[in-house]
Amino acid sequence: MTNGTAPATPSTPRSTLVVTAHAGDFVWRAGGAIALAASRGERVTIACLTFGERGESATAWREGRSLEEIKGIRREEAEKAAATLGAEVVFFDAGDYPLITTPELTDRLVAVYRQVRPDVVLTHPLDDPYNGDHPAAARTALDARVLAQAIGYPAEGEIIGAPPVFFFEPHQPEMCGFRPEVLLDITEVWNTKRKAMECLAAQRHLWDYYTDLAVRRGVQLKRNAGPNLGLAHKTMAEAYMRPYPQVTEVLD
Amino acid sequence: MTNGTAPATPSTPRSTLVVTAHAGDFVWRAGGAIALAASRGERVTIACLTFGERGESATAWREGRSLEEIKGIRREEAEKAAATLGAEVVFFDAGDYPLITTPELTDRLVAVYRQVRPDVVLTHPLDDPYNGDHPAAARTALDARVLAQAIGYPAEGEIIGAPPVFFFEPHQPEMCGFRPEVLLDITEVWNTKRKAMECLAAQRHLWDYYTDLAVRRGVQLKRNAGPNLGLAHKTMAEAYMRPYPQVTEVLD
Amino acid sequence: MTNGTAPATPSTPRSTLVVTAHAGDFVWRAGGAIALAASRGERVTIACLTFGERGESATAWREGRSLEEIKGIRREEAEKAAATLGAEVVFFDAGDYPLITTPELTDRLVAVYRQVRPDVVLTHPLDDPYNGDHPAAARTALDARVLAQAIGYPAEGEIIGAPPVFFFEPHQPEMCGFRPEVLLDITEVWNTKRKAMECLAAQRHLWDYYTDLAVRRGVQLKRNAGPNLGLAHKTMAEAYMRPYPQVTEVLD
Amino acid sequence: MTNGTAPATPSTPRSTLVVTAHAGDFVWRAGGAIALAASRGERVTIACLTFGERGESATAWREGRSLEEIKGIRREEAEKAAATLGAEVVFFDAGDYPLITTPELTDRLVAVYRQVRPDVVLTHPLDDPYNGDHPAAARTALDARVLAQAIGYPAEGEIIGAPPVFFFEPHQPEMCGFRPEVLLDITEVWNTKRKAMECLAAQRHLWDYYTDLAVRRGVQLKRNAGPNLGLAHKTMAEAYMRPYPQVTEVLD
Amino acid sequence: MTNGTAPATPSTPRSTLVVTAHAGDFVWRAGGAIALAASRGERVTIACLTFGERGESATAWREGRSLEEIKGIRREEAEKAAATLGAEVVFFDAGDYPLITTPELTDRLVAVYRQVRPDVVLTHPLDDPYNGDHPAAARTALDARVLAQAIGYPAEGEIIGAPPVFFFEPHQPEMCGFRPEVLLDITEVWNTKRKAMECLAAQRHLWDYYTDLAVRRGVQLKRNAGPNLGLAHKTMAEAYMRPYPQVTEVLD
Amino acid sequence: MTNGTAPATPSTPRSTLVVTAHAGDFVWRAGGAIALAASRGERVTIACLTFGERGESATAWREGRSLEEIKGIRREEAEKAAATLGAEVVFFDAGDYPLITTPELTDRLVAVYRQVRPDVVLTHPLDDPYNGDHPAAARTALDARVLAQAIGYPAEGEIIGAPPVFFFEPHQPEMCGFRPEVLLDITEVWNTKRKAMECLAAQRHLWDYYTDLAVRRGVQLKRNAGPNLGLAHKTMAEAYMRPYPQVTEVLD
Repeated sequence: MTNGTAPATPSTPRSTLVVTAHAGDFVWRAGGAIALAASRGERVTIACLTFGERGESATAWREGRSLEEIKGIRREEAEKAAATLGAEVVFFDAGDYPLITTPELTDRLVAVYRQVRPDVVLTHPLDDPYNGDHPAAARTALDARVLAQAIGYPAEGEIIGAPPVFFFEPHQPEMCGFRPEVLLDITEVWNTKRKAMECLAAQRHLWDYYTDLAVRRGVQLKRNAGPNLGLAHKTMAEAYMRPYPQVTEVLD
Repeated sequence: MTNGTAPATPSTPRSTLVVTAHAGDFVWRAGGAIALAASRGERVTIACLTFGERGESATAWREGRSLEEIKGIRREEAEKAAATLGAEVVFFDAGDYPLITTPELTDRLVAVYRQVRPDVVLTHPLDDPYNGDHPAAARTALDARVLAQAIGYPAEGEIIGAPPVFFFEPHQPEMCGFRPEVLLDITEVWNTKRKAMECLAAQRHLWDYYTDLAVRRGVQLKRNAGPNLGLAHKTMAEAYMRPYPQVTEVLD
Repeated sequence: MTNGTAPATPSTPRSTLVVTAHAGDFVWRAGGAIALAASRGERVTIACLTFGERGESATAWREGRSLEEIKGIRREEAEKAAATLGAEVVFFDAGDYPLITTPELTDRLVAVYRQVRPDVVLTHPLDDPYNGDHPAAARTALDARVLAQAIGYPAEGEIIGAPPVFFFEPHQPEMCGFRPEVLLDITEVWNTKRKAMECLAAQRHLWDYYTDLAVRRGVQLKRNAGPNLGLAHKTMAEAYMRPYPQVTEVLD
Repeated sequence: MTNGTAPATPSTPRSTLVVTAHAGDFVWRAGGAIALAASRGERVTIACLTFGERGESATAWREGRSLEEIKGIRREEAEKAAATLGAEVVFFDAGDYPLITTPELTDRLVAVYRQVRPDVVLTHPLDDPYNGDHPAAARTALDARVLAQAIGYPAEGEIIGAPPVFFFEPHQPEMCGFRPEVLLDITEVWNTKRKAMECLAAQRHLWDYYTDLAVRRGVQLKRNAGPNLGLAHKTMAEAYMRPYPQVTEVLD
Repeated sequence: MTNGTAPATPSTPRSTLVVTAHAGDFVWRAGGAIALAASRGERVTIACLTFGERGESATAWREGRSLEEIKGIRREEAEKAAATLGAEVVFFDAGDYPLITTPELTDRLVAVYRQVRPDVVLTHPLDDPYNGDHPAAARTALDARVLAQAIGYPAEGEIIGAPPVFFFEPHQPEMCGFRPEVLLDITEVWNTKRKAMECLAAQRHLWDYYTDLAVRRGVQLKRNAGPNLGLAHKTMAEAYMRPYPQVTEVLD
Repeated sequence: MTNGTAPATPSTPRSTLVVTAHAGDFVWRAGGAIALAASRGERVTIACLTFGERGESATAWREGRSLEEIKGIRREEAEKAAATLGAEVVFFDAGDYPLITTPELTDRLVAVYRQVRPDVVLTHPLDDPYNGDHPAAARTALDARVLAQAIGYPAEGEIIGAPPVFFFEPHQPEMCGFRPEVLLDITEVWNTKRKAMECLAAQRHLWDYYTDLAVRRGVQLKRNAGPNLGLAHKTMAEAYMRPYPQVTEVLD
């Protein structure tokens, strides 16, 4: 109970909602957080706004696949990766490159919020000069989160509280204003994350890239890990930002 | 054990080091955090670099007191307030208005770090256009923290790890680049903080000012407190910044 | 005549335009500025883009009111508060939560600009992670202000000059990048502002909140008020930002 | 009485203190503000911390002058320019390139503050990657201003209030984080400023450079000058920043 | 071959794409860069999203011209100026004041990217509080550039690489967050730029304004020009920002 | 001749000055740039302000070495690494942890500037919350660079021009405000850099860390490398920032 809120009732495990632009994003960037939550018996729901069918599927296009085939491939891969991590995935099929934010899309996501009732939300940061779909997904995630709290907003389900939000790390962090504000120790679920990455066959070149990144963030975790000098050598980590203040009962 | 480190051994309670420019600073700005830690049986050490004898004692000067008298008054008040909160206070008597940073002052603080072995450090933010002593104290606190970690630095005692740092809230937060990154729920120790404030008789006008601030930060805490809609109405809080990333095993 | 412009002709009093997202915003955040201007015999027009019927009327929704009833309640309260302050209020009924910016909405506001011919414009800041309607209203206000200056823009009325703009203070200022750049002394109209706040019965919990804020900004005003040490003790103030440079004939 | 303070007594005209690093700085950057204040019968005191003898006197060094000769030339030029503007100049001779900030230098400036009792202070901005003396002078100006307000600070004279501060424009504004926050109309004293610039014979190449700058800032002034469309065509201006909030009784 | 890429084949000269909001923008802000590229035998294509018919043609409106007449005048002027510089201009006629970004407009620009295959892209910066059309054009330019790289995006032509982007200087640079990151020496094509400016008869007041600016940026170029002290006295320059990292084989 | 300056005379090869806090810094962070310059026959001089004897030599301290022994080890390693890269190294032995900036230290570096006459300068960024010696070295490097340009500054040798400056990448870039503004392709000298890293035996754990970093920056280089889609797959790179504008005759 570190965040100043009352404990959930025993029958309702903690719930995490991950909102991403493309089918693969949740694996590279938040696979560790998802696997950790699942390993604690919590519920994790991934809302993929698009399949990444146009912008993140170059290999399939070069092979001459059709749009529908590509969506199918991406869906299958993402479902396999989500299952590996222990999460459920929901596809919005809103169309990528560009992903266009509309009140209707936001409204669909409000419904998910009110159904999933997240204790924590993960999404993209709000800036990415290399891929406009990522900020579009993040804005939709944040807008829907605010609307889902309003009793006057006309959507099914009970209004929710204000869950904390974490931005996961973009591909080129320094160019997106990303600064690691939270370093999450994912050592114990690292193998699971690696297996989930390997479900994404078409992006094989990213497997090692994101393994190296986890090592790098692990080194930084140890540099910031407090007085415990004997921390095990090989720590794997993911980095996050917090757009809203942390609420806590203890400074640590 | 939310921050990814091994638990302290049972015989060593957690240790907090508070580094401030003037004798009263720790009460107004971190009294809640100090009282909370003390209430959990932890050790809190306050390093006051000066008594605030020139810059924060206008009433006493107007009454015609001498420099030594004023230092004595400030020391007594601060010791009383610290005792009320459950903390120990150490005075450096480095001279205020201006507090001048020197290698010797930093060195004295390194020795305190190695002796106190803090699990967490609280100090001023690095900018304050209204009072240069505050940034000077913060820089000294941060410099000493780094030196205390180096085996090659010639000071007594064992080297320490890298304790997390929190900047407490300055008097005019928006003018100092202060953004609440952590909201600490101090409701249960509020009465203790109020009593400690009342030890500082000469600054009576600040008692209500900092009470109002705690209410205000409490309102914000509730606006960011996650899905718990039924949070008790009157929450008191203190705000902090984190200059270093949070290390954690759970996103919440 | 501190801003380098020629005096208005005697028959045209100064005109202020306030553009807000919801019906209550102008009271909490700019009530002092409005009352001050009105007390000098100036004209103040408030453009409320929505009634705040979905996002700012939780109590009424809990009481089971219909959408139209709620709009009616909000309109009545806002008109009463505006009359108390000495201002006129115009409702756009553009729909809140979310307030969606459209060329049509901007066009309607251009017409108001050309009719009201403001000497000064007040609106929300451009960032607010807690409420997207506020930035949407601010963007509309700024866009319309630019279009209203262009002779080629097809709207009724004469083109206007470039009135200075002030952003009033949001609910969680540090989270919105708000820094007090202007502190307005509202002591002499404080009672009027308080009365206007009390017209908003459903938000009774904010009456004291915004009274405390006025005290706090008043303390800061005195800390920045120049060489006059004897300034009266109880000063009430409102804080503003300036997105455009101040134009002046004297530095003070 | 636009800034919320009581009027000065009739016998004490307003007082302006200008703190600069080098002998010529006040002419190029604040000559208009100085001439305007003087033209209103106000007192202006310029504190030049150095003569700019090493860093700003390349021509004289190339002519083979000695250090003392160069100081003499710079002093004479600066006195002539100050007299042209209607101001008095005080030299600290603290040594330039680099200007080193010391408690002693700050203390000498505190004494000037308490004697001059400024209603407004002008100095350099705090960043300048092309000339470290400028930020050093600005820091000294700001530190001394705070100390001069403290009754406990041991210097001659009565303590002062908190005068507003304005940063004048550096040579390469965008590289110094300079943003025009205040545009001062200096049209009516432009000829005086030009004459003062022409007192600085060795920097003849800057005469036109700073004339062009005044035209440029004048164009911007008109773009921000409010509803007065008929503003005279040739407006000359100087730009300033405000590190502290403006205090006012009217938004304009 | 300073940027790490293979040389273009001899038969394909380098290609530059300039994306602007209004018909005159490319002359004032990038005329030097365009003339330089053309003088090296390179291809330059200017995509004007609007004629600036409403927002940048006040004189013509005051003369009572019709919308179509004004578009014609602007088109003619812009074509003449482009020819003077040695570039080709394409008009999108998307409507200005406000320029509204739509997927269709972006799509039309993607087609231009794939056809022109730019080695370098010039456009407006992303912020401009004085003219919302400029950021709208810049966002369209950046979005289209990303889409044009995606094999999955359904547009005619081959996908392109990721050309470097440069933001040219806005009218009020400090208010738009503009910092000169690149200073381009345009001395040798200055006369050509001046002639192109003189094609824009209705904005005669800007001819000298932008001449002065080129002198000013030239002075700064010399202050940053490295060890060559003998650089010719009268250097003319244009300033640019880089939103993406420079890629190079040599640091200079 | 991409930067707008006249070519060096044939007999004077280009000169690079690298200013670092500790003996190992130049290898990890700028080894590629140094090896590239040397491979082109240019002169590279490394000014190490300290040996890193206290702060960067934990292993040696744990082995019980004396201060002088450690300095000797570090000197030897650094000289070997510099020789591998093709550079010369100069030790200032100014004492680390903390490295204290003094006018005397700056003066010694001014003399090196006037002797080496650099065409380009490499140093640390100005912020590093993990190691205050790095910013201290950077400030000294920048201050000395300005003084070395002034004819009035009393040091041996001819004054220099204003060489461009590059900040190399710190260990935790996002925490130091580091954004890759320049990506330098070091593929062809990678083996040399790796060999130089292997001269630093005590920091073996960094060999792979900085190899991974070069891969990562190489991936980003390719993402920003312009229209050349066929760029070789395995590109190694180093990232830099530019505190001063780039001066150029071509935008690429």
